Amino acid sequence: MTYETLLWDVDDHGVATLTLHRPDQLNAFSVTMAGELEQVFRTDALADDVRAVVVTGSGRAFCAGMDLSADGNVFGLDESVRPDPAEFRAAYDQAPYDAGVRDTGGKVTLAIHALPKPVLAAINGPAVGIGATMTLAMDLRLASTRARIGFVFGRLGIVPEAASSYFLPRIVGIQQALEWVYSAEILTADQALAGRLLRSVHEPDELVPAAQELARSFVDGRSAVALGLAKQLLHRGAAAADPLEAHLNDSLAMYWTSIGDGKEGVAAFREKREPRFTGRASELPPVF
Amino acid sequence: MTYETLLWDVDDHGVATLTLHRPDQLNAFSVTMAGELEQVFRTDALADDVRAVVVTGSGRAFCAGMDLSADGNVFGLDESVRPDPAEFRAAYDQAPYDAGVRDTGGKVTLAIHALPKPVLAAINGPAVGIGATMTLAMDLRLASTRARIGFVFGRLGIVPEAASSYFLPRIVGIQQALEWVYSAEILTADQALAGRLLRSVHEPDELVPAAQELARSFVDGRSAVALGLAKQLLHRGAAAADPLEAHLNDSLAMYWTSIGDGKEGVAAFREKREPRFTGRASELPPVF
Amino acid sequence: MTYETLLWDVDDHGVATLTLHRPDQLNAFSVTMAGELEQVFRTDALADDVRAVVVTGSGRAFCAGMDLSADGNVFGLDESVRPDPAEFRAAYDQAPYDAGVRDTGGKVTLAIHALPKPVLAAINGPAVGIGATMTLAMDLRLASTRARIGFVFGRLGIVPEAASSYFLPRIVGIQQALEWVYSAEILTADQALAGRLLRSVHEPDELVPAAQELARSFVDGRSAVALGLAKQLLHRGAAAADPLEAHLNDSLAMYWTSIGDGKEGVAAFREKREPRFTGRASELPPVF
Repeated sequence: MTYETLLWDVDDHGVATLTLHRPDQLNAFSVTMAGELEQVFRTDALADDVRAVVVTGSGRAFCAGMDLSADGNVFGLDESVRPDPAEFRAAYDQAPYDAGVRDTGGKVTLAIHALPKPVLAAINGPAVGIGATMTLAMDLRLASTRARIGFVFGRLGIVPEAASSYFLPRIVGIQQALEWVYSAEILTADQALAGRLLRSVHEPDELVPAAQELARSFVDGRSAVALGLAKQLLHRGAAAADPLEAHLNDSLAMYWTSIGDGKEGVAAFREKREPRFTGRASELPPVF
Repeated sequence: MTYETLLWDVDDHGVATLTLHRPDQLNAFSVTMAGELEQVFRTDALADDVRAVVVTGSGRAFCAGMDLSADGNVFGLDESVRPDPAEFRAAYDQAPYDAGVRDTGGKVTLAIHALPKPVLAAINGPAVGIGATMTLAMDLRLASTRARIGFVFGRLGIVPEAASSYFLPRIVGIQQALEWVYSAEILTADQALAGRLLRSVHEPDELVPAAQELARSFVDGRSAVALGLAKQLLHRGAAAADPLEAHLNDSLAMYWTSIGDGKEGVAAFREKREPRFTGRASELPPVF
Repeated sequence: MTYETLLWDVDDHGVATLTLHRPDQLNAFSVTMAGELEQVFRTDALADDVRAVVVTGSGRAFCAGMDLSADGNVFGLDESVRPDPAEFRAAYDQAPYDAGVRDTGGKVTLAIHALPKPVLAAINGPAVGIGATMTLAMDLRLASTRARIGFVFGRLGIVPEAASSYFLPRIVGIQQALEWVYSAEILTADQALAGRLLRSVHEPDELVPAAQELARSFVDGRSAVALGLAKQLLHRGAAAADPLEAHLNDSLAMYWTSIGDGKEGVAAFREKREPRFTGRASELPPVF
């Protein structure tokens, strides 16, 4: 696939770098970009030669938020729908892609979340609105000293979206999440680091290489199946109703990895050599 | 309404200051105060001219906990009830207000939690027992250097209440929550800040003004509907079973705000002027 | 009971010290140790003269992980089972102990989690694999400066187990949990402290005494019923769907403690004397 608003490049470790690429618009999030982001995470990123994804922005911004320069109905909503909450949820269960008033940003973050591979944000500059919330569905957030992050929805009279209400409290705690959403202020990289939104802050030139190197350290010599299941287990475990639910999940994941790549892993450990794993993330065993 | 144990004052930004006012009893929590707190959060605080609430205490204490000076059955319980767990929950579902052995503090914190507006604690002195747990249902906790906070239930042979078992681990993490409840010790403001219970610590004279100023910054020029829905989304998202649940919630909230105050917000942004939002928190759109 | 792989000692405060005792194998986790750990938490630790448990390791390690020195099928799995996820969960519901492919580490951590008493890890040296994940089900983690902690499963091609996907994100947040599992690196005590996995770090000689002293401070003069219920409330509250669920739970817990040890607690408080609690953790009132 080629994309209008994205660059996609995979190195020889299997680390893909996905670059939001509308530099003249500060990589503002358009309907085209939304569709392409959902597509890339549901297709290219699933290929077995891709082991992890680093997401960054072209030029001086990460993503300046929803593109408000378009004329007319910026959110693309049909105002006559007046959705009933119960009917909307039922419509989603019937036909997810046709359910009428689904938030565009959420379609993207659900696709990011569904990828059974590490996804790292490399926030190189302003990340505002959906530019901030899309990173919450990624596993780790690294940023440049030039990053500026804002959950600015309140200034526009709208709410935080892209399933951010699920992710943000789990990353930074409920008190910090509420303050940032209420304040709608633009945070510096240091503020975001102190509030535990960011994993680390880097010099601008060193950000993307650091994210790529970290991603490589996660995947080099590792089982793609074990990594993918571990991501799913941790995200589900963070929302599980009790430890038993996690135990039943991880029992199955341990079973399948133990009779799969785990056999090679234990053999290599005993023979003091590097393992040669053959499992594929595109064929995860049935756990959930 | 006038209250026996509370002071209530709303400034011209819509920031209400609610003062626990039994200074000679260190604002100890009595049956009267409990009823009045539930009442103020379910009536006065819902008025549309109230945009946020700051809660503090009269005199040198915030709230010294349950008033144990009363004679007789301090917890007001009918010992003959011997509630069956399943029957108690069913009775609640049938008639919440009549379900016999409901914890008094929990009635208050559920009312605080239900208010779709920012609520800030300004902890000016000792906050012990219910004086500590009532602040957990508030969105942010600021404190004076003179604050002393204690989850002291264990010293009395009772358990933490007021739905604190829900809130405390989400604010400070499960390890810190367990330690403070097990230890039942009185924490200094610095200890509570280090443990992430508090958002910030202030000089005594500067505490209430700082909380009021922060509250004003949340509401001045902001949509009451967007703020109310954002609070509900974040609290529900923190407990959601998966990101999809949050996505369906925020899709509806985005829909209604986008065709409501969001239209004015985007127009004002494009016209580089201040928005004039008209939505009312007393009439939130149907999302949940 | 006497154990082959464990030491068990109860002091006169009721603080038990449980020592993983295979020092020549760095206390590696064997099938025997797994069975004995589950047993000790489900029997000896439930005795009413035991008020809290401190877990540590003999010699220089805490627990070096699964014992990979055994010949053959190290995980003890029947590869012909090929469990169907739905059938496996149904089998568990029917007969938990017979459900075929249950993870061994999870049986141990569910037993630790079920004990209605404070459990503290005193991590005296390397704690790797199950040696790390077993501590997550304990309430607090103290460590020696010599502790080295690794969620190293990814290096072996397997996944984190022992219900760690439930516990780890609730202790350190989802971002940190994902990084440590992806990296599979061995953390120093300082790294684990900075990431909030540990409650505190101690000089090697001071670790176990510090953990024992902390445990004594939790239980001396305290109600065993109130402590046990508080532990259950906090763990359930951290996973509750909403504050109402916590309110209904803590209403019942408050009821029973208020007409139980809480009566003595309030009386002692009024009479300015030490309480004499008589409730027993082996007979917790019906709350859940």
